[in-house]
Amino acid sequence: MPVGTRAAVKALRSGDLKGLDAKIILGNTYHLYLRPGNQIMGQMGGLHQFMSWDRPILTDSGGFQVFSLKDLCKVREEGVEFQSHIDGSRHRFTPENVVETQRAIGSDIAMVLDECPPALSTLGEHRQSMERSMRWARRAKEHHQRTPFLYGARQALFGIAQGGLDHDLRRQSAEALMEIGFDGYAIGGLAVGESTEVMYEVVERLAPQLPADQPRYLMGVGTPQNLLECVARGVDMFDCVMPTRNARNGTVFTWRGRLNLRNALHRADTSPIDPDCTCETCANYSRGYIRHLFNVDEMTGCTLATIHNVAFYLNLMTATRQHIQAGDFGAWMRQTITQMERPE
Amino acid sequence: MPVGTRAAVKALRSGDLKGLDAKIILGNTYHLYLRPGNQIMGQMGGLHQFMSWDRPILTDSGGFQVFSLKDLCKVREEGVEFQSHIDGSRHRFTPENVVETQRAIGSDIAMVLDECPPALSTLGEHRQSMERSMRWARRAKEHHQRTPFLYGARQALFGIAQGGLDHDLRRQSAEALMEIGFDGYAIGGLAVGESTEVMYEVVERLAPQLPADQPRYLMGVGTPQNLLECVARGVDMFDCVMPTRNARNGTVFTWRGRLNLRNALHRADTSPIDPDCTCETCANYSRGYIRHLFNVDEMTGCTLATIHNVAFYLNLMTATRQHIQAGDFGAWMRQTITQMERPE
Repeated sequence: MPVGTRAAVKALRSGDLKGLDAKIILGNTYHLYLRPGNQIMGQMGGLHQFMSWDRPILTDSGGFQVFSLKDLCKVREEGVEFQSHIDGSRHRFTPENVVETQRAIGSDIAMVLDECPPALSTLGEHRQSMERSMRWARRAKEHHQRTPFLYGARQALFGIAQGGLDHDLRRQSAEALMEIGFDGYAIGGLAVGESTEVMYEVVERLAPQLPADQPRYLMGVGTPQNLLECVARGVDMFDCVMPTRNARNGTVFTWRGRLNLRNALHRADTSPIDPDCTCETCANYSRGYIRHLFNVDEMTGCTLATIHNVAFYLNLMTATRQHIQAGDFGAWMRQTITQMERPE
Repeated sequence: MPVGTRAAVKALRSGDLKGLDAKIILGNTYHLYLRPGNQIMGQMGGLHQFMSWDRPILTDSGGFQVFSLKDLCKVREEGVEFQSHIDGSRHRFTPENVVETQRAIGSDIAMVLDECPPALSTLGEHRQSMERSMRWARRAKEHHQRTPFLYGARQALFGIAQGGLDHDLRRQSAEALMEIGFDGYAIGGLAVGESTEVMYEVVERLAPQLPADQPRYLMGVGTPQNLLECVARGVDMFDCVMPTRNARNGTVFTWRGRLNLRNALHRADTSPIDPDCTCETCANYSRGYIRHLFNVDEMTGCTLATIHNVAFYLNLMTATRQHIQAGDFGAWMRQTITQMERPE
């Protein structure tokens, strides 16, 4: 899922996302709650109509952003109080009102509010936090069942497994969520500073414990390699700012690894970013041109690099699905990762 | 002509310009000479190939930008010496090397180097400057005839009439240019601080003195009203950053006047920028959405507003041509201007 934090995938318009054949995008509840706010969002007919996007949208719960505010947030059993990063105004997110905000947004998939503890918390702190997140998950589910769908559309609700890097806590969290019952199950609290190998291990142990016939969603991950490795371990869905944020810094992904287009090396290069890519950028524009646009600070450079990176991620997942169906995913994945990591 | 200063119309990609059916765009020789520079431009196959734009391009001579550097430029008979606004490096533009730079760019229409004196110069200074510009125009024409076309394409060369606000000087300039003989004739040195009425008067006196069967081009003008008033006085071509620059500030043009989309007034407005417009922006996105994008600093807002403003200017000129052919241009123009200037 490309990330459309504030009702736009940065540097793109919704028509571009359709041109890229993105099947679903992510919106950030924290940002949309602050601006434009639930009232305007409701008056505008929800996020689909607001941003002119008629395909699925998943919204996070806002928890991750609120807990990233650190000292500006305070957690209680009822919910979490925080100050806006924009104007310092005080707000509260509860499992219930976060459901209501996502109703106002009208996303197709809503996420429960979860506590996102600091990565370096003790085992005891992780246990307390996970258990609270499970109580919140139950409250979210109950409130979701009580509140009406808006804009005439159904809305799925996903639970989020927490528990840090401890396999027992993760298992208990998964069981608590399945006991409540959700439309899909996410793995939260990873990619927060632990090593890639540790992340893979948590996913490898946890994913098979989640229902095989429902979506498993690894939140906030990751590099192309991360995606393939986690698909191999049972994950179905991902979101990450990596393709869009890197693009705006001039870093683009290819089947042969990353390139930094700001590098003067590319200044007279008439070849496309990736000769194996058929995106609008690679079909029409050279590395030399995009390098020039970054060099002179033309925002068009960000747009062209973003189109390519989003296309690359979507193509990577399309190829993944094809190779899973063909039965050769494992071999293809090893070969693809080797090719991406080969030094130029 | 939308202005593509540094090999991109700001906030757009070349595919967007094609979608807007722009027939010709302008590139700035000063900026392209500095970055990417003539050597890279040549290696990349010229500006058309560089920016993936296969329709006509007009390049200015760079004179206007160099003389805008004021104390950082020094004019002599040979040409003008200046320091780059980017790194202070020293350069010289001459009538001859500016032709060569435009050959390297491979524009379809090149402009001669002209001196652009300060608006408040004395009549004597304007005369000296105009006479030098005419000597430069002759040198440019001669050099243009001596140097080969690059990339297999023909390149037209336009002269530029100067002479400040003095009708006699302007007439002498026009006669000198026609004596040399160009593919088209531009009016330079206007829209530099004089009143609109004074500008109209200079155009009204000068345009009929230029050949009726060749393009007359008023450089750097202007508002929608300016364009119509100057078409009425005999002008065929314009370029201006107004539609693109205003768009990036949230100001959009409509058949009922300008709007500032940053205004909170628009925050829950589900209507398009202009109900009479069929551009991609008006067909898909509301004022409320674009207002939100500006409010949260998403560059997509700049792109959507730019698409509309460029579409508006192109539509204005399309309608102008249609009404000229229908024989009712004058009446239509008065009505259109009245409607644009009516207070909301």
